[in-house]
Amino acid sequence: MTHRVHNFCAGPCTLPLPVLREVADELVEFDHTGMSLVEMSHRSPIYDEVHHNTMSLLRELMHVPDDVSVLLLQGGATLQFAMVPMNTLTPGATAAYIDSGTWGSKALADASRWGDAYPAWSGSDEGYVRMPEETDLEIRPGSRYLHLTSNETIGGIRMPDFPDPGVPLIGDMSSDFLTRPVPWERFDLIYGGAQKNLGPAGLAVVFVRDRLIESAPDDLPSYLAYATHAKADSLANTPPMFPIWVMGKVLTWMREQGGVEAMATQTAAKASAIYDVIDSGDFYRSPVDPRYRSHTNVVFRLPSPELESEFLAEAERAGMANLKGHRSVGGVRASLYVGLPMEWATDLATFMSDFRASRG
Amino acid sequence: MTHRVHNFCAGPCTLPLPVLREVADELVEFDHTGMSLVEMSHRSPIYDEVHHNTMSLLRELMHVPDDVSVLLLQGGATLQFAMVPMNTLTPGATAAYIDSGTWGSKALADASRWGDAYPAWSGSDEGYVRMPEETDLEIRPGSRYLHLTSNETIGGIRMPDFPDPGVPLIGDMSSDFLTRPVPWERFDLIYGGAQKNLGPAGLAVVFVRDRLIESAPDDLPSYLAYATHAKADSLANTPPMFPIWVMGKVLTWMREQGGVEAMATQTAAKASAIYDVIDSGDFYRSPVDPRYRSHTNVVFRLPSPELESEFLAEAERAGMANLKGHRSVGGVRASLYVGLPMEWATDLATFMSDFRASRG
Repeated sequence: MTHRVHNFCAGPCTLPLPVLREVADELVEFDHTGMSLVEMSHRSPIYDEVHHNTMSLLRELMHVPDDVSVLLLQGGATLQFAMVPMNTLTPGATAAYIDSGTWGSKALADASRWGDAYPAWSGSDEGYVRMPEETDLEIRPGSRYLHLTSNETIGGIRMPDFPDPGVPLIGDMSSDFLTRPVPWERFDLIYGGAQKNLGPAGLAVVFVRDRLIESAPDDLPSYLAYATHAKADSLANTPPMFPIWVMGKVLTWMREQGGVEAMATQTAAKASAIYDVIDSGDFYRSPVDPRYRSHTNVVFRLPSPELESEFLAEAERAGMANLKGHRSVGGVRASLYVGLPMEWATDLATFMSDFRASRG
Repeated sequence: MTHRVHNFCAGPCTLPLPVLREVADELVEFDHTGMSLVEMSHRSPIYDEVHHNTMSLLRELMHVPDDVSVLLLQGGATLQFAMVPMNTLTPGATAAYIDSGTWGSKALADASRWGDAYPAWSGSDEGYVRMPEETDLEIRPGSRYLHLTSNETIGGIRMPDFPDPGVPLIGDMSSDFLTRPVPWERFDLIYGGAQKNLGPAGLAVVFVRDRLIESAPDDLPSYLAYATHAKADSLANTPPMFPIWVMGKVLTWMREQGGVEAMATQTAAKASAIYDVIDSGDFYRSPVDPRYRSHTNVVFRLPSPELESEFLAEAERAGMANLKGHRSVGGVRASLYVGLPMEWATDLATFMSDFRASRG
């Protein structure tokens, strides 16, 4: 019997146990080929099938339109902070960014290093406790796109609806990828690091509108041009085969669970289990405006730093790991990505109730 | 008993079987932690130890000087084709490149997209059958560096000695990393994709002189600046944890085998076993000038394309896979990276002798 702690890590994420077991079983020799998948040529028919299966599953589960390419890249969301402006901000163009927290402000900083980008809204003065409404946004005429972070992992805030501001949206969805439907008609590009929700670290998924690829500058270094990867089905250079393989298994598992729609329901239910305990008294406190509370990263405080330390230590002893809030904000954070079983969320909720009762 | 074919793939590479077995055993639960290593926070003490262990092993085995940083990045050697000029070619600077084949010419093309770069020598007219000697190089005054590819995977050619041209060297060593000692005093930077010799795909290793990092432009997007990764011990964003973990195991295995010096001897011996058969008659033919023959990628031809097809088919039936030459050049190619057992090379040599005898 595998010893398995309830791992609430904010990323890399908990993976479904059946997926981990399959990978372990297949790791030394893949499907009677006499070698590991990670030792195979990325141009072999066997790897090719794994690669295209992962891309097809993404396309199917996310209901990706035909004029949007699916790219499997490296460098995480962080490299996308650079590739997005490099492929879009030709001289004279400008781009609007929502500064909704750590990730939104990093994306804006990188875009500003490359071209002309400005904050269309910032939650900084309020301490990043909410997302903007569409009417809060100040978008300058002629902006090429509006960049948003659909969920801020550290602040624990989520955009409940996507804005429709009259310019194309570009979204970093690293931490709520495949936990919500996407209004594709508003988006030119969506990206995310796979390790927050879908698989192991070392893989970024990018969905990009073909017209964006076609209008990009043609003098970018090859890895940094979306065109390079789109033309080659993300096989222009050796792809990160292991996370692509494992993510394919996670996506297959997700499809069996009912796809994005089921994931949206389950993720909301996991989050509600925790928020219900928070809201049922004054002991726990959520710093986030209820409308903007994240479904994947539930952050909360206890009455004192001492109680927070005791809570984390007792949780650890009870087999619940990685509940400490991000070092920049403190407190407690429970990340509830798609691979995390519902039971772990309800166990945490029960633990929270019991802890409160014991200190009440 | 694991069924294991002799896999001569040019990359991703054959890994030592004990390494694959260890990874499979530890994949579901790492070291009694109740979770997989690939589910852990990259900021956890446990992953941190794995990460720094891999970096220390690289430093130790490659005898890396103190003023050279070791970086673990993503995007393969291909992203380095961009990052090298971005971090070095300030306006007015120029860089010399050796066009020694597919990889050298790709590196030059990317540098030219970014800044001023020129070929100091090209093997194109001769069909890329040799490397340049130092006296062949035409390096313009004021060149910031000379870029070389120490081994061309497709052409099967290798630089027997590194030049000392009076400007710092920058080297792509993807396909002979850790199979030869490095004269560090001549190098400002060495990079390579791990999947050619050291581990699974999705990881690039960069050794970079601190003075290069310090003199780089300070307005690069964050992922693309070496400084970002050097300051953060390659933990500025989520690193590719799986290949870093596996590469650490390969490096530990290499240390047990005797380190880089032993690998240099073993790799040369594996190559000699094949070249000896080639040179012992007129049946097989190497297109490469003997002085420049690769130790890691042995390319050869047979008297006719028909015989080459028969050879490849019989080898496959005999349990020897991935011997087909690169699609751009044809013929046969046996890649003999560090994880490939000596016995496989001698088995191939025997097979080659037998095949020749059967067709003689």
